[in-house]
Amino acid sequence: MENHRGSVTAGKAIRCKAAVSRNPGEALVIEEIEVEPPKSWEVRVKILCTSLCHSDITFWKMSTGPFAIFPRIFGHEAVGVVESVGEHVKEVQEGDLVLPVFHPHCRECRDCKSQKGNGCSVFGYRLNPDMPRDATSRFKGMNGEVLHHFLFVSSFTEYTVVDVAHVVKISSEIPVDKACLLSCGVSTGIGAAWKVADIEGGSTVAIFGLGAVGLAVAEGARLRGASKIIGVDLNPEKFEIGKTFGVTDFINPATCGEKKVSEVIKEMTDGGADYCFECIGLASLMEDAFNSNREGWGKTVILGVEKHGTPLALNTYLLLRGRSVTGCLFGGFKPKSDIPLLAEKYLDKELNLDGFITHELSFQDINKAFELLLQGKSLRCIIWMDN
Amino acid sequence: MENHRGSVTAGKAIRCKAAVSRNPGEALVIEEIEVEPPKSWEVRVKILCTSLCHSDITFWKMSTGPFAIFPRIFGHEAVGVVESVGEHVKEVQEGDLVLPVFHPHCRECRDCKSQKGNGCSVFGYRLNPDMPRDATSRFKGMNGEVLHHFLFVSSFTEYTVVDVAHVVKISSEIPVDKACLLSCGVSTGIGAAWKVADIEGGSTVAIFGLGAVGLAVAEGARLRGASKIIGVDLNPEKFEIGKTFGVTDFINPATCGEKKVSEVIKEMTDGGADYCFECIGLASLMEDAFNSNREGWGKTVILGVEKHGTPLALNTYLLLRGRSVTGCLFGGFKPKSDIPLLAEKYLDKELNLDGFITHELSFQDINKAFELLLQGKSLRCIIWMDN
Repeated sequence: MENHRGSVTAGKAIRCKAAVSRNPGEALVIEEIEVEPPKSWEVRVKILCTSLCHSDITFWKMSTGPFAIFPRIFGHEAVGVVESVGEHVKEVQEGDLVLPVFHPHCRECRDCKSQKGNGCSVFGYRLNPDMPRDATSRFKGMNGEVLHHFLFVSSFTEYTVVDVAHVVKISSEIPVDKACLLSCGVSTGIGAAWKVADIEGGSTVAIFGLGAVGLAVAEGARLRGASKIIGVDLNPEKFEIGKTFGVTDFINPATCGEKKVSEVIKEMTDGGADYCFECIGLASLMEDAFNSNREGWGKTVILGVEKHGTPLALNTYLLLRGRSVTGCLFGGFKPKSDIPLLAEKYLDKELNLDGFITHELSFQDINKAFELLLQGKSLRCIIWMDN
Repeated sequence: MENHRGSVTAGKAIRCKAAVSRNPGEALVIEEIEVEPPKSWEVRVKILCTSLCHSDITFWKMSTGPFAIFPRIFGHEAVGVVESVGEHVKEVQEGDLVLPVFHPHCRECRDCKSQKGNGCSVFGYRLNPDMPRDATSRFKGMNGEVLHHFLFVSSFTEYTVVDVAHVVKISSEIPVDKACLLSCGVSTGIGAAWKVADIEGGSTVAIFGLGAVGLAVAEGARLRGASKIIGVDLNPEKFEIGKTFGVTDFINPATCGEKKVSEVIKEMTDGGADYCFECIGLASLMEDAFNSNREGWGKTVILGVEKHGTPLALNTYLLLRGRSVTGCLFGGFKPKSDIPLLAEKYLDKELNLDGFITHELSFQDINKAFELLLQGKSLRCIIWMDN
């Protein structure tokens, strides 16, 4: 029966469980919701497992401003199986293993067809709270109220609806919990190391912030043969776990004394790191990363989303000496073409994904995943849907 | 006799005429000076012609701070003939046609040997007022006082002494006035277009500031097949001359009304220019250039030296959408390897150098060159030494 579930439910609304965020910063509530069938160009996905990323927490905490939108279904790192597809969807079909991804990839526009960058000029860079084409929600509470989407994914629910531009088909050979990691943070870090920085063998690398994204940068740098990978983090425990991803040296800014972190990095790298990555989202750390860069060709890659909107202030004389700064979303990866390659590298035992999974929980315990991440205890907690 | 001048004067001080800057902002004084023989690793050059660049004017005007150094011999765009060489100099010999260049290239250090960047880790990025190795001057006034060097070149004199790291040998086939242009501004602009931005055919380009450097960027973009080259300048006359270097469209910020320049550029380029260049040296214009860049892969190249030390403030959200900012000195060119290639391109009639020369003067009229540049009337004024 399970294999034919799609044909039974296709075209109908599905009642299922979701972890709804009703108020900013408050525990999610597992409740029954209704998930509408996919419209044209949309795909309904049965989520197998999901994980928690810092961006979920950032928006969950938000109590004011245009992005403080509730009630809402968070979650944007997940893997699932296509339950049914809307009209015009040919790319995937019922039963396909897919990752829903926040980063769009229409494959038709000038940006998607270009070899440069990973933007999509049809779907753009937006933070709409609902479906991208018609700005309406596919979720309803039991009293009929609208529940909003998050980052075009909303994976904290047994079923979700995603635009086909936000769906990546993936080989069913990869264990689903490992696949789940590729839908946001880990891909972002590896992509930043490979696509954006394009790290070469023998390079020196400094990574500000050793969360999952920063460690994925380290993993990317390790696979490219970097000679020195310096992790910068206030949590000394991050060094031990960092070693498994290739981090060779560690700096705790709290124990640098009078010296600036950039001075320490310059001493350790004979003048500055070839590549610096900011994986936190603070303008002051972005500046530190830039100042830690080598003259001549040092490149700073910004991955963190600046939480306060503070601009990045660059010393133009340092810039003139051949440094550069670049930013990226989703690590510069084009989801539909690059994620399957990462899955292959995992299956070929090149890429370390297992190390990112520090915890596993059942869906009903989802609020514990929030606690673990807030306390800096987890990298990625896999949340298994109850089914 | 002229051919053997080197052998006659080698090892001895030479008395010759120089245009000495005795006080900030005051007319240069043509006076007799004494030029010491080259020490080890140094080359004494008989200047044939020189030209005036904005950086000369910036330092000539400076009346306070550590870089306000007088009396001094300015000038750093020039061409000359080697008169004699110091010990250990094998790269050039008496009679060779050479360009003295402000940008060092030792060819031995990690930076010089690397394919990335154009820094030199032995000579670094310095603004020392005298010779780079021993920090002493080779110039004396007739009363015995020290006259200081400028940017390791000092070309406003019939003879100068330059470190071999600052000398580029060049084919004697190229007319010397055209060669002169390659020692600073024109190379900087072309290099920024080719080496730093690496503009590809069909790209859109915006250039802030259509002085010689900005027009050289346009020439570089034209040769790479850019589809649209937008010049931004307050002087409307710059559009006519710009056309000869490939500028296809012109924006005068004074006539944009309510619209920001970046908005106008976005409209003209369907979302932003692929490459933006700042050739003035104002943080606010650097920000305008960045804001005029295309999402996804837009690249801003900073060529201007910020005159007030103001940092460049970047909106980090725009950065995350795939834009990048990079700076360069000497257009990312390695002088000894890249300048001869530019000379070849001129001789092959590919590169337009003639258009940069708007005026010619004799050495005794050098102060008129300052007036012409200050009034925005000249791009490059060739100053012929009287000999």
